[in-house]
Order: sequence, then structure tokens, then C-alpha cells
Amino acid sequence: MSRSGEFEVIDRWFVPLTDEGALGLTDDAAILPDAPPGESWIMTKDAMVAGVHFLPDDPPDLVARKLLRVNLSDLAAMAARPVGYLLATAFTPDQDDDWIAAFARGLAEDQQEFGVHLYGGDTVSTPGPLTLSLTAFGLAPRARLLRRDSARAGDDIWVSGTIGDSALGLRILTGDIAEADPADAAFLADRYRLPRPRLALGHALGGLATAGQDVSDGLVADLGHIADTSRVAMSIAFENVPLSPAAREVLALRPDLALLPLVGGDDYELVFTAPASARAAIADLGTRTGTPVRRIGEVEEGEGVTVTARGEPLKLAQTGWRHF
Amino acid sequence: MSRSGEFEVIDRWFVPLTDEGALGLTDDAAILPDAPPGESWIMTKDAMVAGVHFLPDDPPDLVARKLLRVNLSDLAAMAARPVGYLLATAFTPDQDDDWIAAFARGLAEDQQEFGVHLYGGDTVSTPGPLTLSLTAFGLAPRARLLRRDSARAGDDIWVSGTIGDSALGLRILTGDIAEADPADAAFLADRYRLPRPRLALGHALGGLATAGQDVSDGLVADLGHIADTSRVAMSIAFENVPLSPAAREVLALRPDLALLPLVGGDDYELVFTAPASARAAIADLGTRTGTPVRRIGEVEEGEGVTVTARGEPLKLAQTGWRHF
Repeated sequence: MSRSGEFEVIDRWFVPLTDEGALGLTDDAAILPDAPPGESWIMTKDAMVAGVHFLPDDPPDLVARKLLRVNLSDLAAMAARPVGYLLATAFTPDQDDDWIAAFARGLAEDQQEFGVHLYGGDTVSTPGPLTLSLTAFGLAPRARLLRRDSARAGDDIWVSGTIGDSALGLRILTGDIAEADPADAAFLADRYRLPRPRLALGHALGGLATAGQDVSDGLVADLGHIADTSRVAMSIAFENVPLSPAAREVLALRPDLALLPLVGGDDYELVFTAPASARAAIADLGTRTGTPVRRIGEVEEGEGVTVTARGEPLKLAQTGWRHF
Repeated sequence: MSRSGEFEVIDRWFVPLTDEGALGLTDDAAILPDAPPGESWIMTKDAMVAGVHFLPDDPPDLVARKLLRVNLSDLAAMAARPVGYLLATAFTPDQDDDWIAAFARGLAEDQQEFGVHLYGGDTVSTPGPLTLSLTAFGLAPRARLLRRDSARAGDDIWVSGTIGDSALGLRILTGDIAEADPADAAFLADRYRLPRPRLALGHALGGLATAGQDVSDGLVADLGHIADTSRVAMSIAFENVPLSPAAREVLALRPDLALLPLVGGDDYELVFTAPASARAAIADLGTRTGTPVRRIGEVEEGEGVTVTARGEPLKLAQTGWRHF
């Protein structure tokens, strides 16, 4: 195992990820392009710690892509389109040249997929655990931002994709779920390791949805964030929460985990609210962006989140997963 | 010792540090104000790890202020004026409520001093060590940015303030230097713990200096960065490097450390190049911004960095301090 010095690491693996705003990573700071008229820069920053937010032996390219994608998911939740990112890595002695090369390959792959570039950052050492922080930035029309504080009683509640896959995938990877069919297990583990930020849908929802965010802490917890900041209540029907076929099969084997999709987190789907008058437009958006969307409940006067199962309120011991 | 949950920590200590761009930290991302015409957003991101970039028992308010200031120093080095920052904290179980409260007080104090606000970020847990990452952003007139790649043979080399204080201060704090007079020790330790980012000078140097950066890796190493990216050679005279009275006294007691100021790092002064025709203007800037400035050498054709002592080239075993 060998490890190049800081500047060699930057030159070999990080400089190739840049474009002109990064000044070749030779300066201390990066220059953002001018925002087009009527658009604003949107910025977000998420950190990940090995053993807390990903598994220490997760493949480095997938760690890199997850780090980038959880941030892109935050931009999607604001209706922004991504432009670039800054990266801070605190590598341990376990991150040798091969590891760093694979990590950079993962970033390169996702840069291509999402049209973003590296603009700068910092490369430091830590005795451990591996700690990563990424700041992503993008542009959004200022008048069509998607926020959390503007849900209104009477709105529908929608969610994209399927919920609970990632939480089940984590439990498969840690050995807590041993019963899954191998194909289901592979699908769910991939959902844990590689979020699909809903950028096309998020960007299109600007000006159409009344409020929204991504599902990262857990569906109920994240609905709670919208409820709290919008000063409304949220009510959803458990049977409407969209589950993947793989999740349904695993949950049939493990009925003790039936409620996990509600609280599991790490879904990186979008949960959003919109008036009933927007139903056809949202369904159409889902089709146009290739993103399944589903109505799961409604916004009401009051506070808090209620989940019903066949009309009866469910009691949840825990509302969300906190990485803290 | 007690520790509040993630959302309580954010509400109690981080929300009070925000202004409107942060949306009360309730959203996943922050909105930047529009850049004025002709100005660009400049972004930088530095990470700090306990035991690597600061001492684990450093006072939390000073850790916070150092974290912010090392980033502001990067903005100063680009001639930008700071506007705000995003903060990612990976706290260990040692960071209890009192620690976090003091950390936030340090940020509040420096926000007042530098006119910046918190715009967002992430709060996670780590088994240790305490790891912090900050992304600072500011504005600079696009036509007057200070970069590294534009030093020209014949330019003067200048440095602000005094060099070597921080490296001596660290060695005093770790017990490697026991001989210092208490007042000198206190001055030097403070210089290690609390950088003074040269924002007024940096901003004014835009359009006047040909190239510049802050001194963080060590004077010779940082001159090397300018030399490499500008494809020139840098020559400085050791006896011209400005030392504080405290540093001079300590170095008189410890002649074995005589060269430490050249390689020690963490100075957060500015080193920059400018044509001889700008001498009077730069001296005047130093006076107007209250920042001592000193000519220490000249840019030449060629490559690399030469340090002379009474006209003879010095041999340096090490050119800089690397946190990697």
C-alpha cells in the first residue's frame, strides 16, 4: 500500500475533475460563474463519516458518488440545477492511492451523469474515521424556489419513487436481514449505496409544488420538518406509501420491520405538497421526467404528522433516523 | 455533561447565527444574494481535524474562530470580501452542550467582527476526532481578482505582518519550547490560535498586486506555489523576513529553530508580488489598512525558491508544513 503526498493526490486525481472556475485548483478559492438574470446560487453542504453514514468497506467509487448525490438531492429539493462542488476529504492511512483513484473515478462518473465539476476544497489527514464533506452549488430561478415553509392546509402530499429501500438495504449489508432473495438484496443494497437525486423532477416542481424537501431523515421525520416550518399538520395513509417489489418481498418475510419504510431514512426521494388543481400537471411531470410520483395524503390545519393504516392512526415508536 | 439532539443544537446555537439567506436553517440548502454587477462569488473550503490542525484542548471559541478565519484568509488571498459561510461539524461525545455553546459564541463574535453570517451546513456525529469543515464565500470584482499564476520576473515579493509566530506558538503550547518569557509565550500562542485574516489589505491589493496567496503551508512552500503556477523563480533574503519582537526573543534562546519561520506555516499573512512601480502605492495601502507590509525579495526568470542569508543561498531540509 502506498500513498502519495497531498499535492500529488490533488494533481493526479482531483485536478482532472475540474473546469475553469477551479483555476486548476492552484488557488485557495474558486470563482463561480455569474448567475443568469433572475436566478440565484443555491448552496448546500453535507458531511459523511465512515461507520455512521456509510460502511467502512463500501466501495470507494460508491462512497464518492453517494457523497455527491446526497448533496445533489438537497439541490433537487430546492428546485435547483447543480453546477459544481467543493470537496473536503479527511483521509485515514487506509485510503491508499488505489482507494483514492477509485474514489476519484466515482466522482468523474457522476460528474458526467449530472453535468457538474469540482471547483476546489481541502485535503487533510485524520487518524480516523474517514470523514468527507462536500459543498454543492447550483442555480434556481429565484421566483420558483421549492421551500419547506409554504405547505397549505388542503394541499395533497406527494412522494417520488419508492420509500424504505435504502433502510432495508443497510440492514441487508450489516447482516440484520439474512432472509432476502439475492436479487432483492442486491437491489436494496444498491439503493442504500447509490441514491438517485430527483433533479429533473425537483427542478420542474419549482412554481408548481407549494413545499418540498428530500427524504433523508425518514419519511415521517421529513414530513414533520415541513409541518413544523409551514405550521400545518400532515396526514398520510400507510397503504399509499410506495414500496418497491423487492421491499415488499423482504417485508413479507420480516413483518417485524413493516414500519421501517416510514422511519428508515436515506431514501433521497422528494416529498412535496401541491394543491389538488395541480394533480394532472404533477402526474404529467412524473411521466415526462421518468420519475414515479404518488399521492400519499393531505395537509391539514393543526400540527404534527399522522399516519393511518386502514383509517386507524398508527403509533410510531420512532419518527426518524438521526445520524447524530 | 449533557448533549442536546441534532435539531436542538441547530435551534439553540446555530439558528441565531443566521440571516435571511439561510431560511432559518429549516431548508436543505441556502440561497445566496445576487452578486452586484461586475462581481463574482468566490468560494473556499477548509477542514480542520483535532490533533492535526488544532489542539484537542484548545478553547472551543478559539477553535471556531480559527476555523472561520483560515477560510476568510483564503478569501483575502483572492481579494474578495466575505459574505457568509456553511458549516459542517462532526462532533464527538466530548462536545457537550457547554462546548457547543462556547463554539457558537466564538462564531458569533467573529461574525460581528467580519460582517458574515451562517447560511447552512450539516451537524453529524463521529466517534472522533472532532472534525470541522467550513465553506466561506465572498464577492470580488471579477477584473481585480488576486491569483497565483500571474507573478512576473522583475516583480517585488512582499509579505504582510510577521512570519513564524504561529509555528513558535504551537511549539510553546505543546511544550517543545519551554524557555520563552511568559508574555512572549502568550503572544505567540495567541498567534497560533487566532489568525488575523488580512481582508482589508487583500481586497485593496486586487488590481495592484500581480499575484498572491496566504501563508498557510509555510512561507517557502507558499512562495513555491506561486513560483510553480506562475512559472517563475522566487528569491528572498532571510534577513528581510519580518519577525515579531516575541519571535526574535524566542529564537535568540533557541538558535536551533532559526529557520522555523520559513517553513512553519499557519501564518495567515499574505505573500504577494507587484511591480516596482507599485511600491509607493503598496506602502500607502499598508498604512491605510493598518497592515505592516515588507519587501522580502524579487521574482526572477527560472523556477523554484531561493532563500539567501547575507547573500549566500540557504539549504532548507524541509520547505513547508503539510497537514496530510
